[in-house]
Amino acid sequence: MRNRLESLSRLPLRENLVGLSPYGAPQIDVPILLNVNENTHGVPAEVHRAIVDAVQAAALGLNRYPDREFTELRGNLARYLGGGVTADQVWAANGSNEVLQQILQAFGGPGRTAIGFPPTYSMYPLLASATDTRYVTAPRDASFRLEAGYVAEEVSSSGANIVFLCSPNNPTGTALGLDVVEAAYEAGAAARAIIIVDEAYAEFSHAGTPSAITLLPGRERLIVSRTMSKAFALAGARLGYLAAAPEVADALRLVRLPYHLSAITQAAANAALTHSATLLANVEAIKVQRDRIVTELAALGLNPAPSDANFVLFGGLADPQRVWRGLLEAGVLIRDVGIPGHLRVTAGTESETTVFLESLKRLL
Amino acid sequence: MRNRLESLSRLPLRENLVGLSPYGAPQIDVPILLNVNENTHGVPAEVHRAIVDAVQAAALGLNRYPDREFTELRGNLARYLGGGVTADQVWAANGSNEVLQQILQAFGGPGRTAIGFPPTYSMYPLLASATDTRYVTAPRDASFRLEAGYVAEEVSSSGANIVFLCSPNNPTGTALGLDVVEAAYEAGAAARAIIIVDEAYAEFSHAGTPSAITLLPGRERLIVSRTMSKAFALAGARLGYLAAAPEVADALRLVRLPYHLSAITQAAANAALTHSATLLANVEAIKVQRDRIVTELAALGLNPAPSDANFVLFGGLADPQRVWRGLLEAGVLIRDVGIPGHLRVTAGTESETTVFLESLKRLL
Repeated sequence: MRNRLESLSRLPLRENLVGLSPYGAPQIDVPILLNVNENTHGVPAEVHRAIVDAVQAAALGLNRYPDREFTELRGNLARYLGGGVTADQVWAANGSNEVLQQILQAFGGPGRTAIGFPPTYSMYPLLASATDTRYVTAPRDASFRLEAGYVAEEVSSSGANIVFLCSPNNPTGTALGLDVVEAAYEAGAAARAIIIVDEAYAEFSHAGTPSAITLLPGRERLIVSRTMSKAFALAGARLGYLAAAPEVADALRLVRLPYHLSAITQAAANAALTHSATLLANVEAIKVQRDRIVTELAALGLNPAPSDANFVLFGGLADPQRVWRGLLEAGVLIRDVGIPGHLRVTAGTESETTVFLESLKRLL
Repeated sequence: MRNRLESLSRLPLRENLVGLSPYGAPQIDVPILLNVNENTHGVPAEVHRAIVDAVQAAALGLNRYPDREFTELRGNLARYLGGGVTADQVWAANGSNEVLQQILQAFGGPGRTAIGFPPTYSMYPLLASATDTRYVTAPRDASFRLEAGYVAEEVSSSGANIVFLCSPNNPTGTALGLDVVEAAYEAGAAARAIIIVDEAYAEFSHAGTPSAITLLPGRERLIVSRTMSKAFALAGARLGYLAAAPEVADALRLVRLPYHLSAITQAAANAALTHSATLLANVEAIKVQRDRIVTELAALGLNPAPSDANFVLFGGLADPQRVWRGLLEAGVLIRDVGIPGHLRVTAGTESETTVFLESLKRLL
């Protein structure tokens, strides 16, 4: 690898990439994978059958380019979201990272600024860098919560053109009040800022937590992004999407690569969406385990952050690396997200959660 | 749509996107589609079955993220290419447009320049613009051929960091001699230019036309891009790939989105590659129709360009728009690529080609 890196340095790499390492959590094969917030319940048999049937039909025409407008899929996504969202308000790409990249390609770029509120999703600065968008940050306090006044002030004083609000926030699990989104939207008016509410984990929120989708009417600079990777248990299918004003979708049509969504991806996502109730049946079970993790970690004297997602960030660890390695030796992979004294664990099935908690108890 | 465009203008679109229209050929539903160089023979039953079986197995694990390194796929692509290419020399993405975009993200960008030789693939300037790479051009002569000396001089005098050589060239069908690639590589040495040979249509070349893959040993700035959309009849599956030095793949790992290739895409492509002989069986039949089109159009007094691809660009039309519309009325969709007096037609099956030729005769 050293030789490869030396010869890589002979290639004319862009200056802002020199010395970087590829992004991505370690892919280690152990029995219990609780590191990347997947839905560990698997794909229900009924949904598996529907996906295979849909792909079987779509594969007959694979010699043709797919529907560039993925019309059926946009309709199904709009129906799933409800709340009056129509197909022309929906856009999709290969994972929500590609959705976010397209937003930055359309509205970011040289001379423009994006703002994030760390600790938050670690892809935001990378997506900004890849599109030559300046990335500035305003930190969260020790509780990881964000107040409307603070966010508004930071959005306004930074002059940001793009605002990343992640709710529930990865890696902390913190949900945002809609007042924060409204305040960011108003504060961004002068710079005509695009406000992105990244709701990748929205389906795991506690009952009564409203989605920013309810704020869309009348707010043409607001974008709510979602994914089928988490609650829908389809991380392997790579389907992220958004709801926004139809004009936002029109803007993304200018930067999307033609035919960016394969006919198979469209078919699989359509099949899954027609079985969304079955797919989402496991969400309640996951929320039970998530709440159980918070309760039991607190009882162990640790410091779990309240979570509306399918994972829990917990602090109070004197030596997180030792705990991470000890869990790995016990066959449980969780995530060190780089916050001192903290680790993050995905809420798995009941039995996976039990193995995690009992292994952790032995290590403490 | 007018209202939509007006409100789009209120959004903070990047300056270089204002006023643009989305890229893409019209998707019109007529009996004979010869407009986007698809393989009109369809997916053979044996390959269809293999793809469905592979997706059925992969879909069981769709709740998990896919192999970020698509290890099996890189191995299969290397084996297909042969010529000593190894898996660590291969990279892939969702269509060759995404491969090219990643190359520009890694090696292009603000302050850097790409050069193309029009008429050539119309996505090159769009990909350059989307990555804030300056795009300059050096035109082909009336025969659409390129000479090594001319290309070397243009590469050198432009100071380009990225050189797009398309062979066989879209939309003209013109294959490049390897001397042109060698000359571009040497001329780009001072600027450490990345030389991209886009061989999307390579499988349709006349016997004896060598691939730039044979030039890879010892040339770490050379990239040969390919696709499964054309000869492999898998346009709907979106799988483009490249062969280059392993360091180039390492550079692209820095800009690829994590898990950019879905588990289903990987499974479908792997299945197709294990049946490549069956898939490629139609290539010879397509080449026969391509050569037939060239011969018959010349006999009609038109001016078809010699083609090593699965399409033919032909000139000598007084009113190409009238001919295009007349063919459409006859149920045959071909492509106006914007070259005065010219149209481009894909070589279809024997019967599709017959309908095209007879309809054209009636129109002339």
